Amino acid sequence: MVNERDFALFTDLYELTMCASYFDNSINGIATFDLFIRQLPENRSYFIAAGMEDALNYLKKLKFTDDHIKFLKSKNIFKGDFLGYLKNFKFTGDVFAMPEGTVFFPNEPVLSVTAPIMEAQLAETFLLNTINLQTTIATKASRVVYAAKQRPVVDFSLRRTQGTDAGMKAARASYIAGCAGTSNVLAGMKHGIPIYGTMAHSFVMAFEKEEKSFEAYSGTFPDSSTFLVDTYDTLKGVGKAAVIAKKLEMNDHRLKAIRLDSGNLASLSKSARKILDKNGLDYVQVFASGSLDEYKVEELLEKGAMIGSFGVGTAMGVSKDAPYSDVVYKLVELSDHGKLLPTMKLSKDKVTYPGKKQVYRVADKDGNYQEDILCLRDEKIKGIPLLQKVMEKGKVMGKIPSLEEIRKNAMHNLSKLPDKYKKLENAAKYSVEVSQGLQELTSKLNKILKEKL
Amino acid sequence: MVNERDFALFTDLYELTMCASYFDNSINGIATFDLFIRQLPENRSYFIAAGMEDALNYLKKLKFTDDHIKFLKSKNIFKGDFLGYLKNFKFTGDVFAMPEGTVFFPNEPVLSVTAPIMEAQLAETFLLNTINLQTTIATKASRVVYAAKQRPVVDFSLRRTQGTDAGMKAARASYIAGCAGTSNVLAGMKHGIPIYGTMAHSFVMAFEKEEKSFEAYSGTFPDSSTFLVDTYDTLKGVGKAAVIAKKLEMNDHRLKAIRLDSGNLASLSKSARKILDKNGLDYVQVFASGSLDEYKVEELLEKGAMIGSFGVGTAMGVSKDAPYSDVVYKLVELSDHGKLLPTMKLSKDKVTYPGKKQVYRVADKDGNYQEDILCLRDEKIKGIPLLQKVMEKGKVMGKIPSLEEIRKNAMHNLSKLPDKYKKLENAAKYSVEVSQGLQELTSKLNKILKEKL
Repeated sequence: MVNERDFALFTDLYELTMCASYFDNSINGIATFDLFIRQLPENRSYFIAAGMEDALNYLKKLKFTDDHIKFLKSKNIFKGDFLGYLKNFKFTGDVFAMPEGTVFFPNEPVLSVTAPIMEAQLAETFLLNTINLQTTIATKASRVVYAAKQRPVVDFSLRRTQGTDAGMKAARASYIAGCAGTSNVLAGMKHGIPIYGTMAHSFVMAFEKEEKSFEAYSGTFPDSSTFLVDTYDTLKGVGKAAVIAKKLEMNDHRLKAIRLDSGNLASLSKSARKILDKNGLDYVQVFASGSLDEYKVEELLEKGAMIGSFGVGTAMGVSKDAPYSDVVYKLVELSDHGKLLPTMKLSKDKVTYPGKKQVYRVADKDGNYQEDILCLRDEKIKGIPLLQKVMEKGKVMGKIPSLEEIRKNAMHNLSKLPDKYKKLENAAKYSVEVSQGLQELTSKLNKILKEKL
Repeated sequence: MVNERDFALFTDLYELTMCASYFDNSINGIATFDLFIRQLPENRSYFIAAGMEDALNYLKKLKFTDDHIKFLKSKNIFKGDFLGYLKNFKFTGDVFAMPEGTVFFPNEPVLSVTAPIMEAQLAETFLLNTINLQTTIATKASRVVYAAKQRPVVDFSLRRTQGTDAGMKAARASYIAGCAGTSNVLAGMKHGIPIYGTMAHSFVMAFEKEEKSFEAYSGTFPDSSTFLVDTYDTLKGVGKAAVIAKKLEMNDHRLKAIRLDSGNLASLSKSARKILDKNGLDYVQVFASGSLDEYKVEELLEKGAMIGSFGVGTAMGVSKDAPYSDVVYKLVELSDHGKLLPTMKLSKDKVTYPGKKQVYRVADKDGNYQEDILCLRDEKIKGIPLLQKVMEKGKVMGKIPSLEEIRKNAMHNLSKLPDKYKKLENAAKYSVEVSQGLQELTSKLNKILKEKL
């Protein structure tokens, strides 16, 4: 657990040592760093931007406390004048970012920071951390939601997310990506996300007979009970649930759902549906959970599973098959006594485009996305610019969108991304063109740097 | 970011709804829940227990605030009398746990909670969350440390851990598992873990020439500089580093290391070592980083790489190949009006052993681990008991070990686990025997439950 007021030290030590050396050598030109993802993990074809609200909040409040200074001093690494600089540190730069919920692609900056190099450098670790996690989970969750074909998906990942912060961010990111809600009560309180709950096997086992547990639970929640039916024998469990449901009807109550959590969910769901329907319980939903992910959800529906909604846990909440994105924060421009120098690293396999950039999205007449153009910020290009100025001189610009607005933006973005780009496997590759201006700058700089070697 | 005072709502909603129904139905027998891992992920052969300190701290402080009650009330799910119960909620149970740093195996409880069922149930989500993450990362990190064969390994994962809490816990868990330190400055402040830093490519790029960046950095840190040499041309970079190192020598300073972060690390490290040695710089270490994990570290050393220490990031900090453990929290015993009833779920593929348990470890005369015995807590078995009583009636017993003590325990445990169980792939399977008493109870209960169906 990390307290917000300690965020300044939530950093790799090298951010501080580099700043100390910049300070020592009076280097504080204006730098631009781009935050982008180098490549798509296997079986990903796009990303959903998330984490910008936390990024801005971090930059706005970034401050070294007396405790931080005292600790740094105790390490005998830093000189007194640099510690004095940190004591008065404030982030005073500009930030461009894609709105949360935006669909984006490799090499497109989702966030770009322009600030005195010490300030921009210091922010690296936190910005990467928060955007990496939230983007990774939002992207994964959008795939699960897509596979569920309009059926509600509930985030059940809290018990196995990587820590408490991840638990909160997984709930938020998966809600942005279209989940109906979460089991995480605190996310309900902090973010207003709808919360869902059923019962555990332990509850069923705490009663002498399975049906007694159903009776007890629906006694407490007569109109919102979901019975877990697979503790002993699943279909016998469904039968018992049906009996209780009929009793509830007699008192004008309705069982909400039965939950399957193990076994062959495709065939069990069909049998369960039959038992329920035969008893006139067509309104009782079949809810399924148990080690689900987008692939299993897709397979279940292809097999004709009669499942009304899904609880998806660990695989979504840790993005099991791709638990991080290849996100980097790269220096792309630096002013040297008033002269702007675009910069790049020379490397065979890793491209870093230099200069301040913009990303334009080109859509057809129905608004369906066709391609993106990665270009220099001052180039004139057709399409809709995706990067917006969200911070100026350290001050947040405009209104931070609400979570509902962000979710709506994500739903809109995903609806305009053609299906061929959303297939779970072997999806089409979305085209990101590099503008002529950016190509020219890149080759020019490549040449200059090679000559310097 | 989650504040400790909000931990009570860091829970799946069903923990609360189940408790509400227990409350409603006056069910509050004494329950025992075991926390254990069902199976080893691929390429894992043991686990390192971690997270117990946070677990105890959570149970000790668990409390619903007025804000929590207000929020729960606003959801119109719970009745007033149950909310009143929550208002005065305290954890009053007993806890057995393995000390952090203990090597353990599937089906062995690492934590066991005995408490009134409402209290024990409510704690499920948080306990799973914290022990899952820390155990998963400690286990992964111990493999990286093992592969490095006594060479220091530094945790570089902070920028890509799954959130801030994970960043802190990854630093702590990897230190427990034998890492030399971390890049995470806040982990240095909060846990006293040694912190390490080098420089980024952006630092090198911020100077007109690579050698200028080295000069500037070592001007600030004349005795603790590590130069990153792969920004443009790695071996030319090493040559420049050597020149600066010789200049440092003239002022009685010493370059600490050069860092390789890309390319063929095996051959580059050999060439770099040669360049350094030729210049009489045998004391300058070669430090390597860049998408490393235990497999790559092992391969590098097999190829004779001349690397003195490793920085390992994302793959370790998110446990990339196994980002969670199959950790569960299962009801194993419940008192019913004074009569103890062991419990279990009936399922074909998932074993849950009933009853309160102990785990005994059998070692040879040199202390090397030979096998474990999983048994009932009151059985008399040879060997060393691994579960210790750490909480009684809600009060922590004895002294919480320091991080150094925990690390020492892990180092001792790992040193006594024979090598065949530590191989990165195809390791031998460690034997965990189930005692006769536990076997008998399991079959008896199985029979009783099947008859009840």
